[in-house]
Amino acid sequence: MSMKVFVLFVATALVASQCQGASFRSFPLKMKTEYGDESYTEIRCASWRLAAEALNIFGWETIPEECVNATAKYIEGKQYRSDSKTVNQQAHFFARSLDVRENDAIVFSIDGTVLSNVPYYSQHGYGVEKFNSTRYDEFVNKGDAPALPETLRNYRYLVNLGYKIVFLSGRHESKRAVTEANLKAAGYHTWEKLILKDPSNNSPNALEYKKAERAKLVQQGYRIVAVIGDQWTDLLGKPEALRSFKLPNPMYYIY
Amino acid sequence: MSMKVFVLFVATALVASQCQGASFRSFPLKMKTEYGDESYTEIRCASWRLAAEALNIFGWETIPEECVNATAKYIEGKQYRSDSKTVNQQAHFFARSLDVRENDAIVFSIDGTVLSNVPYYSQHGYGVEKFNSTRYDEFVNKGDAPALPETLRNYRYLVNLGYKIVFLSGRHESKRAVTEANLKAAGYHTWEKLILKDPSNNSPNALEYKKAERAKLVQQGYRIVAVIGDQWTDLLGKPEALRSFKLPNPMYYIY
Repeated sequence: MSMKVFVLFVATALVASQCQGASFRSFPLKMKTEYGDESYTEIRCASWRLAAEALNIFGWETIPEECVNATAKYIEGKQYRSDSKTVNQQAHFFARSLDVRENDAIVFSIDGTVLSNVPYYSQHGYGVEKFNSTRYDEFVNKGDAPALPETLRNYRYLVNLGYKIVFLSGRHESKRAVTEANLKAAGYHTWEKLILKDPSNNSPNALEYKKAERAKLVQQGYRIVAVIGDQWTDLLGKPEALRSFKLPNPMYYIY
Repeated sequence: MSMKVFVLFVATALVASQCQGASFRSFPLKMKTEYGDESYTEIRCASWRLAAEALNIFGWETIPEECVNATAKYIEGKQYRSDSKTVNQQAHFFARSLDVRENDAIVFSIDGTVLSNVPYYSQHGYGVEKFNSTRYDEFVNKGDAPALPETLRNYRYLVNLGYKIVFLSGRHESKRAVTEANLKAAGYHTWEKLILKDPSNNSPNALEYKKAERAKLVQQGYRIVAVIGDQWTDLLGKPEALRSFKLPNPMYYIY
């Protein structure tokens, strides 16, 4: 199957979504009463997470209120770590199957992909509160976000294989110093490019911004071997990578 | 971990990979021993399922051997039902948000989408055995596959909303009588079209076959509002539906 076709298709779906309103808000439909206990809440919330990861649910602003505890349990437990590991493994398996060329690049997102923002979201209901950019900036400016350990391990593999690492983030240019310091403190010591959002950038959303930055990379002669991100909008649209890898993120959705 | 140990680990992993071929077959990498118990197998297998649903893993011929029990537990338990329900709900929410036009069609796959083949796969290791078309044909020819109850409920909603139902299946034309009888026995009493694969069809794979059949529907004047299927190859490629819905299927992957 062609990833290209997939990307094209999903991009269309994303555009369509903006005309459709937000179906996720009516989650869940009434369930059978026999399942109405706390453990069934976990089951429903696991279904919600799965549907979000497979892009059956998108465009959500907050997680369902009943899923705060289940999301906390997921994020703070072994399953999130294992899920992150599995996706990073697949990216690693793919990367090592190729003969690395000089201008082969692998693009990583930053927040929620290479740096964890769980320390922030754990203080804000794991995504049940609406996004507050002022507060989130305070978290970013502290510069002490830890690495997501499975991504860090994969990053090291990929650097050793000879790939050029590009960090492509929606963080603004004004955050460059703190971002560089944070990346290094977390263990990401080398990169080809750190692309942040210029104040003059007028992309309407993350999808368009990241597509445009990937297009520049291609113009500069890079082959984008893989994109690794926690948001579908990190991955979709042309020019696409040879393969794209969706890390789990059940806490927020970025257009 | 020292650099020496790290390099040794990577080297071992690299050598191992070349003996194993496709990446999914080398699942999983060695995990920490503290997690080496049965419950951690379930965690790893849940990660594998999630990665497959999000198309991070594809093209697999069989499920990982260590995941037979975890897959059985998933499929026979409440989680699979809840996951199926959540995706069907999203399709329903989307469908009811539109003003239904006369030639609005919703396309369903059959096996694993409207009819359950769990009775077959439960006898064949839940996907750990390679696909055997002779045996699977015997199952199809019995004509007693039950409905997937969440899909049946959604189907009834969609029929009531006025959508035209198209069943589009990779089953061969020779299975028409038994398929019609099975659909009706399972509760699917009405449809606009039942598209099965003609003996003369020379599509190289399911993806191309289904794309071509959707193109014919569009030529005939239908608007494909949604496609609902358990395989990514049911959904991808042009012409695409307004929205596509991926039902869970951790037992097999169809190209």
